[in-house]
Amino acid sequence: MPEPSSGGDDLFGPHNLPYGVFSTADEPGRRRVGVRLHDRVLDAGAAARALGSPYGTLLDQPDLGPLMAAGRTAWRDVRRALTAWVSVPSHRAELEPLLHPLDAVELHLPYAVADYADFYSNEHHAANAGAILRPDRRGLTPNWKHLPVGYHGRAGTVVVSGTDVVRPTGQRKTPTDPAPVFGPSTKLDIEAEVGFVVGTPSPQGFPVPLSAFRDHVFGVCLLNDWSARDLQAWEGQPLGPFLAKSFATSVSAWVTPLEALDAARVAPPPRTEPLLPYLDDTDEEEPGGFDLRLTVSVNGEAVAHPPFSSMYWTAAQQLAHLTVNGASLRTGDLYGSGTVSGPERAQRGSLLELTWDGAEPLDLATGKRTYLEDGDEVTLTAWAPGPHHTTLGLGEVTGRITPSLTDA
Amino acid sequence: MPEPSSGGDDLFGPHNLPYGVFSTADEPGRRRVGVRLHDRVLDAGAAARALGSPYGTLLDQPDLGPLMAAGRTAWRDVRRALTAWVSVPSHRAELEPLLHPLDAVELHLPYAVADYADFYSNEHHAANAGAILRPDRRGLTPNWKHLPVGYHGRAGTVVVSGTDVVRPTGQRKTPTDPAPVFGPSTKLDIEAEVGFVVGTPSPQGFPVPLSAFRDHVFGVCLLNDWSARDLQAWEGQPLGPFLAKSFATSVSAWVTPLEALDAARVAPPPRTEPLLPYLDDTDEEEPGGFDLRLTVSVNGEAVAHPPFSSMYWTAAQQLAHLTVNGASLRTGDLYGSGTVSGPERAQRGSLLELTWDGAEPLDLATGKRTYLEDGDEVTLTAWAPGPHHTTLGLGEVTGRITPSLTDA
Repeated sequence: MPEPSSGGDDLFGPHNLPYGVFSTADEPGRRRVGVRLHDRVLDAGAAARALGSPYGTLLDQPDLGPLMAAGRTAWRDVRRALTAWVSVPSHRAELEPLLHPLDAVELHLPYAVADYADFYSNEHHAANAGAILRPDRRGLTPNWKHLPVGYHGRAGTVVVSGTDVVRPTGQRKTPTDPAPVFGPSTKLDIEAEVGFVVGTPSPQGFPVPLSAFRDHVFGVCLLNDWSARDLQAWEGQPLGPFLAKSFATSVSAWVTPLEALDAARVAPPPRTEPLLPYLDDTDEEEPGGFDLRLTVSVNGEAVAHPPFSSMYWTAAQQLAHLTVNGASLRTGDLYGSGTVSGPERAQRGSLLELTWDGAEPLDLATGKRTYLEDGDEVTLTAWAPGPHHTTLGLGEVTGRITPSLTDA
Repeated sequence: MPEPSSGGDDLFGPHNLPYGVFSTADEPGRRRVGVRLHDRVLDAGAAARALGSPYGTLLDQPDLGPLMAAGRTAWRDVRRALTAWVSVPSHRAELEPLLHPLDAVELHLPYAVADYADFYSNEHHAANAGAILRPDRRGLTPNWKHLPVGYHGRAGTVVVSGTDVVRPTGQRKTPTDPAPVFGPSTKLDIEAEVGFVVGTPSPQGFPVPLSAFRDHVFGVCLLNDWSARDLQAWEGQPLGPFLAKSFATSVSAWVTPLEALDAARVAPPPRTEPLLPYLDDTDEEEPGGFDLRLTVSVNGEAVAHPPFSSMYWTAAQQLAHLTVNGASLRTGDLYGSGTVSGPERAQRGSLLELTWDGAEPLDLATGKRTYLEDGDEVTLTAWAPGPHHTTLGLGEVTGRITPSLTDA
């Protein structure tokens, strides 16, 4: 399949229809559910009203919460209705006044993030990160191929694409520093990830099996898990990442419905260790992987093309693991895949890996880079196979680094 | 100071007045803000209406959110008003019909938990846990005395006192097991902690200094950070605790206003390493510690008396650290102190430490215990010095273990 032109119209045609939340300049305080069509946004609530649709109760809302909570059957029915609205010529004419140019609206975080968890499920990334960050302990940790390693992040600092990211300040200490040093992070990094957004909640005490993935997960977004590697190296033992990650996590403004990615389903890489039954997806109806092709750009220049199909653990396995202890799900729970990296250098989804912790700088048009400099803008985009040999795009996630507000 | 009788009326007199949320049997769906007075609950919103108080907008609400978000001046003014209402005889008579017996109401989680973070700030606990869990690496981690080590937990599984806790299921593997074993946790533990509840939010990018602790923290609760030690030992590298903690965290139904604990302020233990300026509390106006005396009971039998005054890092330092990277605060953010332990065996706040990972079982009236058995009920209580040589109580947090719903 040829790589689609970036920003090509076809990526956001009627086969895609991702959901978001927007406001317009003349009514900046009124947030509305929108559906992206090419380079415009359909006011979905107004469309439901105009067409007398019963789905107005889900779409004529200030965020995606009610639709997300409505469950899989409603997701399918609303998507069918939207597809008809934008495809049937008579409807299309009626909806024309409700389509706003993308560059004339403001996009918002489309749902209230409940809990944010993040995984570490790409073998290339885990092997690279382990070799760089824990050279004294060779290879993957012993648990890595038996469970999708993960941790909880800070939900309150998840921001929508386009939000500036203030460089975090904190403590760092290399083994040779006599004492900790305080100041703005000198190793500010990205992590190119895919996020999964939970719609249907589950009660405490009841694990969600692999087979129920589609009943609970509403859709998919792109996610940049900004990471301060210097803070991380010093704070991380024994309880894992904390301030190195909690200052900001950026997500795309558009949530792609899971159903739009049916044609992108692929088998995950072969598993090299036996799986416990709750993680064993051998007999699942559909393959657990997704063939999403990511691109990482720094200041408009592509620096990596991480392949999501290389993820060792699937999103369904991550959800089954997340809940196997009885943890409940809430509408708005968000979980990240973990950094996506492939076997090639040009497929690595973090600067940690791309520059091997700064030892091999990237030579960009905007200058040499080890880690991010103030003013740098990072953008993640992705496309995937769509139905009938089409391609579809995931909404981009972008963010620009602004200087720390704290003096060193 | 003599230990107060447990459940003594004086612990919840007009000098205390913790906030909670209750409903009554005749209107089970109507949640209301309540203030505890001895063994009764004042319907605070109805009281404000009856007395024509302007604080009705904050108190006549289904949860504590609006009051918590109103800020420190409002907290002080509302507390003054409540103190007057329950102290002035003429008011007291008017409010008599609005006081519900504690055993006739249902108590609820009193606010929506935004983010939940947990620290690890007691040196006795950290030293004990390190010796038991990481015997290959001696002593505290190198960062421990330079920053309050912490991590994010799962906000969606924070439950109010009295909620049953389902035994979690998951993977465990000891170094001698040939492969991971799946089943209900065999090392289900408690962690006796104190929780701090954030009222006033802060914007992303702006650290909250030590001196602003009182502007942001609304009050204090007791917190039991249930922990599955067998899951924790296997999953924890390299990203820290995840499923070992995320199945449930219990908090007391009552939030004690920070102001009620003014007489309990004490200096923390001497610091043995220099502090970076953002953590240096040497010149703060008031001492950062709290003289809270905790009791851990299993099936009604006291098994430990952890002293909160032994915490190395204070709640103000934890908040300053949590935000030094620019992480924002939201109304409803909750952070746990970390397990409270003292230097004596009978002061340890976890079964991990009390039984030395099962090697020294407790001999209880209900039988020998290493870790918790199904049906066990764990209760944390605490008292503290109050104003004018009184004592005051923190609301208890209790929970009973029910069997796992998953077969091994």
